[in-house]
Amino acid sequence: MAAVKVSNFVFECEATDGAARCGVLATPRGDIRTPAFMPVGTAATVKALTMDMVRDAGADIILGNTYHLMLRPGAERIHRLGGLHHFCGWDGPILTDSGGFQVFSLAALARKTEEGVTFQSHIDGSRHLLTPERSIEIQADLLGADISMQFDECTPFPATHEEAQSSMELSLRWAERSRAAFGEREDQALFGIVQGSVFEDLRAHSAKALTGMGFDGYAVGGLAVGEGFDAMVQTLGHTVPHLPADKPRYLMGVGRPVDIVEAVARGIDMFDCVIPTRSGRHGQAWSDAGPVNLKKACFAEDQRPLDETLDCPASRDYACAYLHHLVRANEYLGAILLSWHNVAYFENLMARIRTAIREGRLDALRQQISGA
Amino acid sequence: MAAVKVSNFVFECEATDGAARCGVLATPRGDIRTPAFMPVGTAATVKALTMDMVRDAGADIILGNTYHLMLRPGAERIHRLGGLHHFCGWDGPILTDSGGFQVFSLAALARKTEEGVTFQSHIDGSRHLLTPERSIEIQADLLGADISMQFDECTPFPATHEEAQSSMELSLRWAERSRAAFGEREDQALFGIVQGSVFEDLRAHSAKALTGMGFDGYAVGGLAVGEGFDAMVQTLGHTVPHLPADKPRYLMGVGRPVDIVEAVARGIDMFDCVIPTRSGRHGQAWSDAGPVNLKKACFAEDQRPLDETLDCPASRDYACAYLHHLVRANEYLGAILLSWHNVAYFENLMARIRTAIREGRLDALRQQISGA
Repeated sequence: MAAVKVSNFVFECEATDGAARCGVLATPRGDIRTPAFMPVGTAATVKALTMDMVRDAGADIILGNTYHLMLRPGAERIHRLGGLHHFCGWDGPILTDSGGFQVFSLAALARKTEEGVTFQSHIDGSRHLLTPERSIEIQADLLGADISMQFDECTPFPATHEEAQSSMELSLRWAERSRAAFGEREDQALFGIVQGSVFEDLRAHSAKALTGMGFDGYAVGGLAVGEGFDAMVQTLGHTVPHLPADKPRYLMGVGRPVDIVEAVARGIDMFDCVIPTRSGRHGQAWSDAGPVNLKKACFAEDQRPLDETLDCPASRDYACAYLHHLVRANEYLGAILLSWHNVAYFENLMARIRTAIREGRLDALRQQISGA
Repeated sequence: MAAVKVSNFVFECEATDGAARCGVLATPRGDIRTPAFMPVGTAATVKALTMDMVRDAGADIILGNTYHLMLRPGAERIHRLGGLHHFCGWDGPILTDSGGFQVFSLAALARKTEEGVTFQSHIDGSRHLLTPERSIEIQADLLGADISMQFDECTPFPATHEEAQSSMELSLRWAERSRAAFGEREDQALFGIVQGSVFEDLRAHSAKALTGMGFDGYAVGGLAVGEGFDAMVQTLGHTVPHLPADKPRYLMGVGRPVDIVEAVARGIDMFDCVIPTRSGRHGQAWSDAGPVNLKKACFAEDQRPLDETLDCPASRDYACAYLHHLVRANEYLGAILLSWHNVAYFENLMARIRTAIREGRLDALRQQISGA
């Protein structure tokens, strides 16, 4: 009799609407309702918010960044302080990225070899080596992530077919090493990451090879890197059908509401993006019609709240005129309230998406979300 | 039979300990427990905090700044938006300063005449005139302050006796005009401001003249402007005995915990200061031993909270190691949590002061507060 793999991560699909799925990813630290949006907690904080605000806004899970945390305050230090959950005061599930993306986008002198990537910290210039084994050690052992990501290379865009293939194949070899380093764990999960740029054959190959390695979930990486909305949606259409139906699918680093609904319609279950908090720090409030800039003079005496249908104090209890004033005066509270509203808007959008899927009317919801 | 002046502001002294008083200033918008500390909400926000956080930290009353608000978003605008309480979401009492201090410290080209002060906005260079009548109109009629302050000149330090006398006498003439402009109001109060620099005879003259005009409370202005701790305490000792016992006394712009306890011991009932929030934005946490800089390396792995005896999440629920990380990473949440803790520390200090007065042991508490 073959050994049965035991995992306390169970993905249950409760309803479908076309390719879209509504379900729950059960984890030892609580259920993640899918499709799910994960606010980004880069440096062990979802910027400008307390964790209570994040929770109240409807988030089931947050994301942490391996690259930032390994440099400051340091992965070993967080481990000594009781792990990332205890450190930042979030007791729900946390997904960490592998550091593969930031090491190329933020670090200085990043140098890639088969072994991994050497780089200099953008904070203090110190030298580091990140490998699949070290990334998994940081994520799973030191930070204590509930969901770790394989170490990969986010293929730059544009890339020739040859470049994309070579990069994707390296990511597959790093996937195998990540998988081996992770081993078998009951209470932690590991996701693989499909690469292949915008090339259908490469995406299919990557997806199938990863599926053969047996991950707890599958991410689509290397999108939202400049290829544009149409190419992103088309690539999802190529990729998702090659992923196993019984595992969650995660589109990394995406995106705007319009990106999210279209990706959900193609079978994606999980998202993360800095948009809600970054927009919030820049005076923008999200709605179905896209982002609005509260700095605009038209809000100076607008007594309406941002969205009184949202069960979030920032959306419901403050007049746009007050938010306009705070943004103009560059007050912390402007960033706080707009970030809070934006996270609440994104989480509420996911709740509306889940309901729409259950009721078989996702198409109608897609029509309401502006491409702005 | 003389007409009885009706006011819904009633100051009741419940206990004394030497010159120190513990009591309540009842206002139409709620009781202010005295001695009281007023967090400063300069631009219609107590910086980096929501009003819920300010309330939860124990504040009964906050302060708003006439100078800042008249320039941005504008006093008439706030009036059209329903007044300052509605605008900023604080339903307790608000005291506004008169603009007299900031107009000299922040504005450009401030020019003083008997009429008032002309100046240019530090924000957009626009020209303005602030007079006793206009200050009262802004504070009481447009912002809707519960407690307005007379328009005065904060005498610069150092000043010769002649300069201080001339400045104090101008403030007295402006006090009369402020008093006349304010008239009689049941649901709003007006405080006079004693000036006279560090000169005993001038302070006495100012206090007696103001008392004769009949204010709802008396502030001591022109201190904490560079004269030093000893001169401040000495001047309070000269001034307070000339103020009526049945009205609240307010020491403007003060101060550190050590300043507060010493002023309370000399009969002061109300305080305001930017220290808790400014320190919070600069990585400092207050305690009885003075401010500590969370940036220091010694906090990197310190698992203790700032002060678990305080009923404030920021003081109780976060390790110093996490706060250290947030401050080092320059995260908004560092400023939020440290400002929150500091306001809670100051409000709790006032509660300890009130209890100490009731129990006749203010001297013992004074020994605990470091001059650091």
